Amino acid sequence: MKGTVPLLFSFLFATVIGLDEKHVIREKANLLAREVDMMVGSDITLTDNEEKANAIVMDMKMKEVDDGFNYPQFFNLSKHFFKYKDDVKESPLFQVIKNMPKGAVLHAHDTGLLSPDYVVNITYSDDLYVCFVDEDISFLFSENEPEQSCETQWLLMRDARYSSGNVEKFDAHLRKHFTVVVDNPSEAYPDVNAVWNKFGNYFVKTSGLFGYKPIWEMYFYDTLKAFREDNIMYIEIRSVLPPLYDLKGNTYDAVQTAKSYKKMLDRFILDYPDFFGARLIYAPIRLVSASTVEEYLETAKRIKAELPDFFAGFDLVGQEDLGVPLKEFIPQLSAGADELDYFFHAGETNWFGTTTDDNLFDAVALGTKRIGHAFALAKHPVLLQEVKRRNIGLEINVISNNVLKLVDDIRNHPLASFLAQGLPVVISSDDPGVWEADPLSHDFYVAFVGVSSRNADLRLLKKLALNSLYYSTAPYKDKMIYEFEKRWSRFIDGLVRRDNEGEL
Amino acid sequence: MKGTVPLLFSFLFATVIGLDEKHVIREKANLLAREVDMMVGSDITLTDNEEKANAIVMDMKMKEVDDGFNYPQFFNLSKHFFKYKDDVKESPLFQVIKNMPKGAVLHAHDTGLLSPDYVVNITYSDDLYVCFVDEDISFLFSENEPEQSCETQWLLMRDARYSSGNVEKFDAHLRKHFTVVVDNPSEAYPDVNAVWNKFGNYFVKTSGLFGYKPIWEMYFYDTLKAFREDNIMYIEIRSVLPPLYDLKGNTYDAVQTAKSYKKMLDRFILDYPDFFGARLIYAPIRLVSASTVEEYLETAKRIKAELPDFFAGFDLVGQEDLGVPLKEFIPQLSAGADELDYFFHAGETNWFGTTTDDNLFDAVALGTKRIGHAFALAKHPVLLQEVKRRNIGLEINVISNNVLKLVDDIRNHPLASFLAQGLPVVISSDDPGVWEADPLSHDFYVAFVGVSSRNADLRLLKKLALNSLYYSTAPYKDKMIYEFEKRWSRFIDGLVRRDNEGEL
Repeated sequence: MKGTVPLLFSFLFATVIGLDEKHVIREKANLLAREVDMMVGSDITLTDNEEKANAIVMDMKMKEVDDGFNYPQFFNLSKHFFKYKDDVKESPLFQVIKNMPKGAVLHAHDTGLLSPDYVVNITYSDDLYVCFVDEDISFLFSENEPEQSCETQWLLMRDARYSSGNVEKFDAHLRKHFTVVVDNPSEAYPDVNAVWNKFGNYFVKTSGLFGYKPIWEMYFYDTLKAFREDNIMYIEIRSVLPPLYDLKGNTYDAVQTAKSYKKMLDRFILDYPDFFGARLIYAPIRLVSASTVEEYLETAKRIKAELPDFFAGFDLVGQEDLGVPLKEFIPQLSAGADELDYFFHAGETNWFGTTTDDNLFDAVALGTKRIGHAFALAKHPVLLQEVKRRNIGLEINVISNNVLKLVDDIRNHPLASFLAQGLPVVISSDDPGVWEADPLSHDFYVAFVGVSSRNADLRLLKKLALNSLYYSTAPYKDKMIYEFEKRWSRFIDGLVRRDNEGEL
Repeated sequence: MKGTVPLLFSFLFATVIGLDEKHVIREKANLLAREVDMMVGSDITLTDNEEKANAIVMDMKMKEVDDGFNYPQFFNLSKHFFKYKDDVKESPLFQVIKNMPKGAVLHAHDTGLLSPDYVVNITYSDDLYVCFVDEDISFLFSENEPEQSCETQWLLMRDARYSSGNVEKFDAHLRKHFTVVVDNPSEAYPDVNAVWNKFGNYFVKTSGLFGYKPIWEMYFYDTLKAFREDNIMYIEIRSVLPPLYDLKGNTYDAVQTAKSYKKMLDRFILDYPDFFGARLIYAPIRLVSASTVEEYLETAKRIKAELPDFFAGFDLVGQEDLGVPLKEFIPQLSAGADELDYFFHAGETNWFGTTTDDNLFDAVALGTKRIGHAFALAKHPVLLQEVKRRNIGLEINVISNNVLKLVDDIRNHPLASFLAQGLPVVISSDDPGVWEADPLSHDFYVAFVGVSSRNADLRLLKKLALNSLYYSTAPYKDKMIYEFEKRWSRFIDGLVRRDNEGEL
């Protein structure tokens, strides 16, 4: 605070010979300082060693930001993710962020998590049949030729592949079904519905593949493995919990699908005891009637009853603009709130003042614990206050919002203002496999280099990782944060040491 | 406010059988109402007739917004301005907005205001010489062949045109120098520097054309005419005040250029006494040294001394990212503040935390009366508070920001959050001629249909028009607002009448 006398003096001065230059400089510094105090990460105090690491990280960050500023024609994060995703791997800062303990992933979906190459590999499994119809494809595991309809003909995948004459070409073509990545995204996806159509089709096309119980279970195990390797210690997975099937003709309902998840989690933790765990958010499709939502909620309660430690809560998924808005389900969701925690998708839209946009109000009124995306929140000043007051975690997925056409230039992503306002932000990755991103590293990198202030430093990175643990539903949060701090110190020590040894 | 008893009751209820549905609905309504109260325009009360007009306007708006929402593949304002600017003319709402009294234009530059067709017409003037060098062009008025250097050869424009063999083709080619509009903007302008280069070149190429005193004066007279026809009653024009010349070899300095403006304004007001006036913001190029800024400020003071009623204040212009930041001129600008009001461009950038971005802090600390663009302001929570507290008008130019590549999809323009937060917003148009927009109607239309909430109505339109008068520097503000109200009533009456008569 300034004293009264110099302030008064500078006012008097100003009326006589203009503004006092020192006063202008002091006032600017004061305004800047107030903003710095407000930013996400401003409450973190760095140790001496962290300060050293910070200098390394900030050298890297400023070089990359300034190169983008000075040479916008080359690599920079203002372009579409597909245009820079491979270049990112050359960035030393990206490598640092890969190695960095990043805490938890709190917003990630079903079978959208692993790369198209992984999915192509799955198609090498025994007993897999495929049905090609023009540009469409479907899969089914079966001991004999499936009885389900196929407009052409079910082929044993192995036969289709090896009779194609060129396995490499066959697989490359197949791979295109498992990714939304294309060379020219603005041409391939001229509008939001076009890209959502391609994105949604991935899940439709692969339903016969992933619905096979052994594959479903393997996929989750391998997801945990991939996330652990990306230095993630815990995840909360959203799933529609599709019915599963096996070769014996058995089918498994949503509760049993949830149990498959739990079984694989237990197995994974036996194999990798340094991984902290996973919990489930049951998140079925939102384009349904109120009575279906009532059934969903009953299913959710059954899962919670059977897997109380594994079940985290409830959500609804699908393209929010084209889905049914939350307000249609208020009676059901109000009643369900006695037993269930909510983690609603809301505000994944650009359409200000529409019913989709209003989902943000309903989600808050329904007591949601976190908000998925919250992209439109920046347009809602009262909700911004409420999010802060109620401490509702915001699950931000920058790359997803870019790929799914909410924002072309991520410097305009509302995350920038959320970070500036010190909102409870968690960085997540949504469906990184479908756009060929790493489980979380690309999203962290893009948020840090592309969206946050040029001046936002290691404190932001640490805070974002800590937030992901803090806003999780894990019952062993303290233990997890304790372990995180240990891993963080090791990461910092390693970074400083490698820098000293000239290895960076 | 809710009573304590029902609130307590609903809390108790919630713990027993979930949330009370009525409580959820009430809470949402409460949150929504608080936001509605905060929006720009919420303080306007509509008369009965205005309510009728509002119903007409909102029918049109919702139809257009919902068509965009439902059929994103067709016309909608999420695309680049060049893609929809001609379609807009088919919109009945655009026609309404054209007819609507829009108040003042407070942010508009020199010779960027009239269409390329108008500029082509100017090239039919006598005594005009042209120098073609590859894709470059320059002009000079002269009685004889100019002595200035030309890498090829000065041609009398008339000779060049009629010896071309195809006047239409010649003019079409010429026209391309006077517009940034192209069929495929993302291809033509891959980055911000590319489009700024084309934009800046327009001013460079036409400097010999507009620097000719009679043309300079005619251009301003015709600007006032075009703006008046677009239902604008007052403008504040920013100008670099270039030296002018005539056929006799005389040159005129910045003060004399300012006097040319004033002379034409006086003539215009004699011809059109219903136009309220214009004032000048001297806004020379920012890519200069501190000593040049000192000279600028001296010039500004001279203009103020000679034209005290016409001179409004001082600013600096040019691509902000590549210009010198305000902080380099703090000593000069602090000292200049004794005599001069500031209207700084600031925050016309996407680069969060850079020196360009910091211009917002310097502008506020220097006591700027308004901020030009303020695009980056949404990332600065403390400055947002200060702008409101100090009542600093924000001159928002949505189409400019789209064309000059700050934002690809205007639904992500920060204006949306400024409107939601009730900030002192003024809609302006920057350089509408260069991108072939109307003086102000396109910007109003895009702000209203493309950026503001689907629910924002006639009160927003009226408030934006009133703001443009309120945040002007006009000394006859009350009289202007009084006259505005009269014109507004006529507009409302006409709209309601035409609707009754089935003319809409």
